[in-house]
Amino acid sequence: MTLTTRAVLSGVTQTLQALDAILDKAVEQATERKIDPAVLLSSRLAPDMLPFTRQIQLACDFAKNAVARVGGGENPKFPDEETTVPELKARIAKVLAFVAAADDAALDAGLAKDVTFPRGASATVTMTGLNYLTRFALPNFYFHAATAHGILRENGIQIGKGDFLKGVFDI
Amino acid sequence: MTLTTRAVLSGVTQTLQALDAILDKAVEQATERKIDPAVLLSSRLAPDMLPFTRQIQLACDFAKNAVARVGGGENPKFPDEETTVPELKARIAKVLAFVAAADDAALDAGLAKDVTFPRGASATVTMTGLNYLTRFALPNFYFHAATAHGILRENGIQIGKGDFLKGVFDI
Repeated sequence: MTLTTRAVLSGVTQTLQALDAILDKAVEQATERKIDPAVLLSSRLAPDMLPFTRQIQLACDFAKNAVARVGGGENPKFPDEETTVPELKARIAKVLAFVAAADDAALDAGLAKDVTFPRGASATVTMTGLNYLTRFALPNFYFHAATAHGILRENGIQIGKGDFLKGVFDI
Repeated sequence: MTLTTRAVLSGVTQTLQALDAILDKAVEQATERKIDPAVLLSSRLAPDMLPFTRQIQLACDFAKNAVARVGGGENPKFPDEETTVPELKARIAKVLAFVAAADDAALDAGLAKDVTFPRGASATVTMTGLNYLTRFALPNFYFHAATAHGILRENGIQIGKGDFLKGVFDI
């Protein structure tokens, strides 16, 4: 029961799996209500917020980048090309596999090292792997995951926090 | 740069402080637009979702409960009585003080111990402090924090992820 990077990432993994199941529910309910799932994918909470598809892509990227940057390994770029639910589910599956394959010792060693990442178009930020993980990557990841959930809820999809936390009671 | 419970909680503390500043922005913008802040506090993303005030109260409670249950100390009950922004800010301040006052060694020792907490009206769940922190408390905390942000955005309040992550670049 040690607090490792992997342990912190277990919440991220659980939430990515929850988002995958939420996508299935959204398609099922949209189909019943004769709504094209593409309507949900382009939906936003506000006109100047990102649509559902981008929220999922960004949640995926904050999970992937956390593992790549803290672990110090390769950081594959997953292009933001998804336009359908099966494509978004495939993106989630790719990130889950990437997280699972990361080296636990490297993930822990990286906490003490500096991480440098882009901020905006031309600047970068440097902070320790520990601060990056706990104060940047996690809040960002959950922000986009919860916003994705909120967009579906605002569109009348019948899901709730039990779906967002799916798996937590099966540990 | 050790991954302690306190380090994981630094993201929670940062986000509570961010929510406090977001509340100030919301009041300022509501006042400019001649909107009673109470309208925002009772706003929801969907009719069967909890209103803004409850989202803040729940974010506060998941932070407080994480510290109390993992740390094994006293768990004060903060009644859900807030009806104004200053009262919500006072709730956040109380939780921030509670988190700050917790004993770091107890917070780390608690990761290996079982935590038992209510599930629904009559059942309880038991899991390790580590799983409780990383897979239950954190996802719940960020869920409510991000949903609170989403409610304000959906009401046209001009905030964004920079506000949600306030402080991360000042470390």
